[in-house]
Amino acid sequence: MSKAVFGIDIGGTSLKCGLFSTEGVMLRKDELPTRTEESGKYIFDDIADYIFRVINEEKMSPEDIAGIGLGVPGSVNKAGIVNKCVNLGWGVTDASKCLAEKINQKNIKGCEYLGTVIRVGNDANMAALGEYWQGSGKGYESFMFVGIGTGVGGGLIMDGKAVNGFNGAAAELGHLPIASDIVTQKCNCGKTGCLEQVASATGIARLAGMNNAKEVFEAAKAGNEAAVKAVDTAAFYLAKGLACVAAVADPEVFIIGGGVSAAGSYFTDRIESFYRQQVFHPSKDTKVITARLGNDAGMYGAAKLAL
Amino acid sequence: MSKAVFGIDIGGTSLKCGLFSTEGVMLRKDELPTRTEESGKYIFDDIADYIFRVINEEKMSPEDIAGIGLGVPGSVNKAGIVNKCVNLGWGVTDASKCLAEKINQKNIKGCEYLGTVIRVGNDANMAALGEYWQGSGKGYESFMFVGIGTGVGGGLIMDGKAVNGFNGAAAELGHLPIASDIVTQKCNCGKTGCLEQVASATGIARLAGMNNAKEVFEAAKAGNEAAVKAVDTAAFYLAKGLACVAAVADPEVFIIGGGVSAAGSYFTDRIESFYRQQVFHPSKDTKVITARLGNDAGMYGAAKLAL
Repeated sequence: MSKAVFGIDIGGTSLKCGLFSTEGVMLRKDELPTRTEESGKYIFDDIADYIFRVINEEKMSPEDIAGIGLGVPGSVNKAGIVNKCVNLGWGVTDASKCLAEKINQKNIKGCEYLGTVIRVGNDANMAALGEYWQGSGKGYESFMFVGIGTGVGGGLIMDGKAVNGFNGAAAELGHLPIASDIVTQKCNCGKTGCLEQVASATGIARLAGMNNAKEVFEAAKAGNEAAVKAVDTAAFYLAKGLACVAAVADPEVFIIGGGVSAAGSYFTDRIESFYRQQVFHPSKDTKVITARLGNDAGMYGAAKLAL
Repeated sequence: MSKAVFGIDIGGTSLKCGLFSTEGVMLRKDELPTRTEESGKYIFDDIADYIFRVINEEKMSPEDIAGIGLGVPGSVNKAGIVNKCVNLGWGVTDASKCLAEKINQKNIKGCEYLGTVIRVGNDANMAALGEYWQGSGKGYESFMFVGIGTGVGGGLIMDGKAVNGFNGAAAELGHLPIASDIVTQKCNCGKTGCLEQVASATGIARLAGMNNAKEVFEAAKAGNEAAVKAVDTAAFYLAKGLACVAAVADPEVFIIGGGVSAAGSYFTDRIESFYRQQVFHPSKDTKVITARLGNDAGMYGAAKLAL
């Protein structure tokens, strides 16, 4: 068979594991629980086991694997070092080295080769890269992916690559300090006025006084006044954030992903409208579209990173 | 002699013309008036004349010229087309083609070659590129240059290149919509709440009720309360803008240029202090430094672009 590539999205609850052709076709998808006990050290054992199991089941040899990409919920520096992942129990971790060690311990022919094809990236950046490779971002030269869930994260694609930033903190849109005129509660990061306090799923629910963002969007679509106001507030501040992104990087398009993107054009149309009011005119026609790959985006992107 | 490169910064008042070695040493510098009459059409004649005059005076031949770079006060798209320069009288202009035509009309040996080595970029991006090549940005892999004068402009350098943006509007920091809680007057761009309304030289003078920013900084250093308050306000909103830049692109350093940078560390220390309060923590140690090349930065950058 032709070569294949692993894309593994390491989350706090599960390891989302994908095997892809080098052209970007998903060949199989598996989900394993994330074992966070003992500082998350078993995560590497589980991934190493999984990789050899799949190679075996798919009747491949290690040389058929073009790369192994890992997406992690934390910042990753230029050297590939992960700077803490609270959700995984990891401290500062050289994830590719840790995984290579576990793979080598198997003492299986080809394991040394496998240890050399591991690449590590931030999970939101990987989701952006996935959308670039096989999702809504296909064909665009640059875009900002905005993932709206518990928080607000992002991934900036320029010239086909995810921009990592000097401190691994590029596209951390949730912490744009642009909502201090409406937000009084502290963000997890310690600051007040962060965008994600009003624009995350959590923030939207809090604004409306409801249990979750899904409920808010349903109520808003049915005309509930408090819900409409919450959605408009979130959309307004998100739009302000996108106008800031435009004034810094001027991408070709904005792609909204994460759980909240299920609200579809009801939400993106509002964001687009508030965006036009606030953005500098050369970027006023930049479109706001929804992501396509859902929870699979991170796997796709991790695989692409390793190619 | 070894090869040389022209860097020409086309401003509304003067053409700043530099000749550089390909290693970045300035060999000569000239200044010509900008003739904006008749839609600025004579600008190309004047540059063509200048280039052949210098080649002649320096006893070079056209083949000794590695490139001709032009910095223009307007946005430039990927194809090198300038999208209007109000200050020059230009509409949408293919500046390299216009200059090549004038050069070819000279009918001098080598003129056709010269027509092929012309490159065009936005002036603020060129100033950033100049600082990267031979100024304060030397040795940094990425930075945001912030030019504070009549307005607030910028240039984002990543991996040694100026980021232009899909619409040529990257690093248009003056139009970050982050000052709507303090600004009521309209910006030239038609919006309200733009950063440059409080953070430009004009904005700082208005905040203090004084004639110009120089006067404000002198008064502030002498303890004048209104002046100190104006400087602090400008520094606070500039810092908020830099925190936005960090959350989008996370550059290695910020470089403050333009007329206001003459205030030196008195101003940058304040910006840095307000920046730390507002930025997401992974980027909190990013330094704020002053530019080194002053008004020559645009010439250096235009030359670098053409190499």
